[in-house]
Amino acid sequence: MTDYDVLIVGAGAAGLTAAIYSCRKQFKTAVIAPEVGGLTNLTNHIENYPGIDPQSGSQLMNKFLENAKSFGTVLLTDTLVRADKNKDSTFTLRLESGKKLSCKALILAFGKVPRKLNVPGEKEFFGRGLTTCTTCDAPLFKKKSVAVIGGGNAAVEGAIELSPIANQVYLIHRKESYKADEITVAKMHGLKNVKQLTPYQTVSINGDKFVKSITVENMNTKKQETILVDGVFSEIGYESKVEAVAHLVKTNSVGEIIIDDRCNTSCHGIFAAGDLTPVPYKQTVIAAGEGAKAALEAHKYITGSKGGH
Amino acid sequence: MTDYDVLIVGAGAAGLTAAIYSCRKQFKTAVIAPEVGGLTNLTNHIENYPGIDPQSGSQLMNKFLENAKSFGTVLLTDTLVRADKNKDSTFTLRLESGKKLSCKALILAFGKVPRKLNVPGEKEFFGRGLTTCTTCDAPLFKKKSVAVIGGGNAAVEGAIELSPIANQVYLIHRKESYKADEITVAKMHGLKNVKQLTPYQTVSINGDKFVKSITVENMNTKKQETILVDGVFSEIGYESKVEAVAHLVKTNSVGEIIIDDRCNTSCHGIFAAGDLTPVPYKQTVIAAGEGAKAALEAHKYITGSKGGH
Repeated sequence: MTDYDVLIVGAGAAGLTAAIYSCRKQFKTAVIAPEVGGLTNLTNHIENYPGIDPQSGSQLMNKFLENAKSFGTVLLTDTLVRADKNKDSTFTLRLESGKKLSCKALILAFGKVPRKLNVPGEKEFFGRGLTTCTTCDAPLFKKKSVAVIGGGNAAVEGAIELSPIANQVYLIHRKESYKADEITVAKMHGLKNVKQLTPYQTVSINGDKFVKSITVENMNTKKQETILVDGVFSEIGYESKVEAVAHLVKTNSVGEIIIDDRCNTSCHGIFAAGDLTPVPYKQTVIAAGEGAKAALEAHKYITGSKGGH
Repeated sequence: MTDYDVLIVGAGAAGLTAAIYSCRKQFKTAVIAPEVGGLTNLTNHIENYPGIDPQSGSQLMNKFLENAKSFGTVLLTDTLVRADKNKDSTFTLRLESGKKLSCKALILAFGKVPRKLNVPGEKEFFGRGLTTCTTCDAPLFKKKSVAVIGGGNAAVEGAIELSPIANQVYLIHRKESYKADEITVAKMHGLKNVKQLTPYQTVSINGDKFVKSITVENMNTKKQETILVDGVFSEIGYESKVEAVAHLVKTNSVGEIIIDDRCNTSCHGIFAAGDLTPVPYKQTVIAAGEGAKAALEAHKYITGSKGGH
């Protein structure tokens, strides 16, 4: 006997949809996650999830959770430390709390987390002027001076979004050219209060209780300078933290868990859904669809049924 | 200049979600379909689409349509007769109304339709006692005598669903063994008012204004008999009607349009999403996710952008 039929790691759109489908198959199901909502939470106004009125991402994710709980999903506020496959093909999960739980099938849906800058001040000032979500926090920096770090679409769009709000925007990017779409970069070039620092890298984030400045280095001249800013937006992309399962499932060159077109990983009995897989486009409705697939495949795996509709 | 940037054929979960995403990319977008809702319409009570309160399938599909229209989607009540690719890589669509429309990218999302029995009376009595949706119409046959045709999960589950409602249920199946899951078949065996006729095939559906009887043939003895029934539930599966595009895109052995993991068909500029593709499990949320992918790929195709998030 295992503690649960299905354990789902992650409580974003993919994980919570998997929970709905798993519970409706009468499986004893728990979702393990330090917090609910995943990347959808970072959206203030979601209007492209079909079938609902526009609302905040966290409102929508709370509704997902309510749906999952209505079918009997147990939510465990915890973090997976390590999963192991047992000799009888069940899985044992060790959690940060010290708890150990077993299951017949495991669904991985813990998405991605913002990539780290790895500079002094990053840990200290996170949430105190340093943020990884321009969409969420831009309105807090009205008439202030801010820095955006990164060169992809998220960073350049972030600078554009901040331009009419902040007094001064610095865009700090380590290369001369941008990864962002040309049309987006062109739009930024026209903005008078966006100063582009390229190729510059971030050396440290400084302050006392809150961010006061950022120290950057010109990568050609190696000269450092410190710029007074009230906020720093780190928009250098996302990564999957797959350490807890890296010995069980195959990943690709960018660390995403490889799946087939039915969410099966390389390990029999482990399924993966959403942003931590190579599925294209990080969208709530796409992740939700993938979560449904993963749970229906887990059902097939556990019951040995032919599946179908 | 084409009439539209993107034309979408089909107005179920996949087609309407594709329309939302296409319009939000500022593409001039129309959806072509004889009716709105697709297979989701056949569900009286949908409770596994995450993020909403339980409601009828048609309510949910109307909300999808409202969302799509709010971004500028044009709905054309019409049927695709033939699509052709032009020398300049645009597409021209001929519709049943005689209208001709051109577009830069074409998204196929017209799903599946119930398979035909091809017996006398089928056309005449459809909607007059003959139905293809047990879930929708079972409540109409309280204390009546009904026949269910088929041997898969839909048919056997249909017989089980009808058993407490109808007085007498006949299950008519052409083979001795069922394609349905063993557990479902076992459940049916216990029901006293379900009479299983196997291997029997349907010869004709008879009546005057409404269904009065069904004529069946024992496939071993070749003996025919006519059974008095008030309703006939045809549950023999679904098929894609791909004739209008069969000369453009590759299909698999069961007639589904083959796609890669980003909804690209074998024809550059044509995308396919939802039940008419081999994507597993016919679920609203899965079809919606596929529709989003298809539209975002169409955006990449039209703009030549790198895409991404």
